[in-house]
Amino acid sequence: MTQELMECGSDFHRRGWSLGTSSNYSVVIERDPLTLLMTGSGFDKGRLRPEQFVMVDEQARLLSPGPLKPSAEALLHTVLARYGAGAVLHTHSVAATVLSEHFLKDGGLRIAGYEMLKGLAGITTHEAEAWIEIYPNTQDIAALATVIEARLQNAANPLRHGFLMAGHGLYTWGCDIAAARRQVEVLEFLFEVVTQKRLLSGAF
Amino acid sequence: MTQELMECGSDFHRRGWSLGTSSNYSVVIERDPLTLLMTGSGFDKGRLRPEQFVMVDEQARLLSPGPLKPSAEALLHTVLARYGAGAVLHTHSVAATVLSEHFLKDGGLRIAGYEMLKGLAGITTHEAEAWIEIYPNTQDIAALATVIEARLQNAANPLRHGFLMAGHGLYTWGCDIAAARRQVEVLEFLFEVVTQKRLLSGAF
Amino acid sequence: MTQELMECGSDFHRRGWSLGTSSNYSVVIERDPLTLLMTGSGFDKGRLRPEQFVMVDEQARLLSPGPLKPSAEALLHTVLARYGAGAVLHTHSVAATVLSEHFLKDGGLRIAGYEMLKGLAGITTHEAEAWIEIYPNTQDIAALATVIEARLQNAANPLRHGFLMAGHGLYTWGCDIAAARRQVEVLEFLFEVVTQKRLLSGAF
Amino acid sequence: MTQELMECGSDFHRRGWSLGTSSNYSVVIERDPLTLLMTGSGFDKGRLRPEQFVMVDEQARLLSPGPLKPSAEALLHTVLARYGAGAVLHTHSVAATVLSEHFLKDGGLRIAGYEMLKGLAGITTHEAEAWIEIYPNTQDIAALATVIEARLQNAANPLRHGFLMAGHGLYTWGCDIAAARRQVEVLEFLFEVVTQKRLLSGAF
Repeated sequence: MTQELMECGSDFHRRGWSLGTSSNYSVVIERDPLTLLMTGSGFDKGRLRPEQFVMVDEQARLLSPGPLKPSAEALLHTVLARYGAGAVLHTHSVAATVLSEHFLKDGGLRIAGYEMLKGLAGITTHEAEAWIEIYPNTQDIAALATVIEARLQNAANPLRHGFLMAGHGLYTWGCDIAAARRQVEVLEFLFEVVTQKRLLSGAF
Repeated sequence: MTQELMECGSDFHRRGWSLGTSSNYSVVIERDPLTLLMTGSGFDKGRLRPEQFVMVDEQARLLSPGPLKPSAEALLHTVLARYGAGAVLHTHSVAATVLSEHFLKDGGLRIAGYEMLKGLAGITTHEAEAWIEIYPNTQDIAALATVIEARLQNAANPLRHGFLMAGHGLYTWGCDIAAARRQVEVLEFLFEVVTQKRLLSGAF
Repeated sequence: MTQELMECGSDFHRRGWSLGTSSNYSVVIERDPLTLLMTGSGFDKGRLRPEQFVMVDEQARLLSPGPLKPSAEALLHTVLARYGAGAVLHTHSVAATVLSEHFLKDGGLRIAGYEMLKGLAGITTHEAEAWIEIYPNTQDIAALATVIEARLQNAANPLRHGFLMAGHGLYTWGCDIAAARRQVEVLEFLFEVVTQKRLLSGAF
Repeated sequence: MTQELMECGSDFHRRGWSLGTSSNYSVVIERDPLTLLMTGSGFDKGRLRPEQFVMVDEQARLLSPGPLKPSAEALLHTVLARYGAGAVLHTHSVAATVLSEHFLKDGGLRIAGYEMLKGLAGITTHEAEAWIEIYPNTQDIAALATVIEARLQNAANPLRHGFLMAGHGLYTWGCDIAAARRQVEVLEFLFEVVTQKRLLSGAF
């Protein structure tokens, strides 16, 4: 699974979704006790190497020996994994950065009517809409993880598909790495569509 | 021909025209009885493998054994193949999604005066225009296939070049995979030109 | 030199400057008598093979045996070669297509003040300007070649850097393939700069 | 380290940040006496070869024998190295060209509130702002190097992160090649964000 996450990094870096040392990726490698394999903090995602990953427990505590640290955002990965995600991918694209900053005032971004929505887990018709929640950016990841946990526990209206941190980027997840990667591609495509549609709306 | 379709997928995925598990591709491998090799449903088009293809007959019924299903849109491929297409490529680009949503009210998109039009089958001068029809998106593919069949039967004014499904993407075809791929590249280029021209029309 | 032109094709196709079967490339392989190696008509520039090139004389007549034809635009290559070009590259980008269509009414596109201009042959300071002439698109290549020849003969004000055909694309050249490729990259970069600047001018 | 700079060139050329023969890159290979390995003048950055690098001293005088010349801008590299940079990367992107031309009147570009800012050396929270100074473009590099040196000596308000030359491109640096490359990726990402945000501001 290290290899699959390295390939995600290489592709996302090439597309400009994981530049600098931004982004972090994880996958559940054991359910009981919950154990995640996760990118270590501060590495170039375009050229990840196997020794740049760490193992963490359900509280994002480091399990693997050595000098590496998990990302500061590891708690967001572990809370999503505790509520069922098999893999969590966090990316920083230009479109996600700009849209999340603008639509923070609305609390989310509504995307409706596109065939590509069917690529999101649980959606089977284009006559659907996705509501992608947007949270203010913060350096207090523990506090945000608590908010996300409450949203995941809300059975009547659970957090779905993914979420944006304003001026920061996307968190999404799936049952495995391939499913999470699909979510990233679908959501980033839809962010581009929303952006292009708005740019053209003046000219149309 | 599996290899050629895998290369289409890899290139189109890289360009952002087949993200998520969107898109499907087919090629006629026998004319009598009509038999198509087609991408199975739900695979990543950027990394197709030979075992992810299926064979279908002229009614899009599965011919190959095993657990794979043809795409829900297989009927569109087979109707195009019955009227002469040797290969059919369906892609989802940002430009095609946005333009098809906007111009649905006009029933199509007129593209005129560009040299690149000469890359479309049957056009030999830039003093030509292409009319790319746009249909409402639907999950009832059988009904759409009937509409497309009627358009293909219209000898006085047949459907040409390709068509768009609104908010969804492009269908185009050619005598073989290379010809169909050329149609995709030419049409996607022209969609970009139309988009850029409109974006600039305010500033010009 | 076949290999170098194949690499141009692969890179330009990847960038979207030579999609479909658009574009043609040539290099002078002998000066006396003038002999050019040139891409044959109708091939995918992203995957050129050695057997897809032809040899032509100074009047663009085919020298190599076999079924291939030179491009319909071969006369533009030979006239440029007769006046000194060692390699000629013709590309079709979205930016060149849109700008050439819009600025045809002015007869050309003025680009001034950018450091990148120093990448063009003969320019040594950014306090320069390039005037890229734009001609109406035509299928009568012989007539256009005559116009271009007259411009190349104009010692007081010779055609420089390259030229655009409206709604069609760029012709540029250099003393060898590397120099011509540099001209393509510099001019396409500058076309993107002009486009972005105009798009932003409303918002600024 | 030649290999690392060749990889920078290949990646930046692919992204369109080092087209033509633009850009130059350097790395400190000895501190006492100060010695830099630097790209020679006039080469394609997408396909650098080991023999296309030169060695220079702290005054940008050529140390290595042979016909190659250091870039005309070598003095900017050496002044940055004398004040601590371990590697200096200079790139020419469309976004940097357009933004630097527009914001020259303000003397710089303020970028605030984005998570990606944390990728810049010395920034640990998104509640930061980066002020990227912009200088008029010039062919008198010695004079600009004197200005930059004065800014680096200003202990109360030193030049940070990088700087732009108007209509020209970005200079940035780091303790080593990987750190400088990170700075390029982060700053180019942020230039894209600023551009997209402004383009959308009319439509929003």
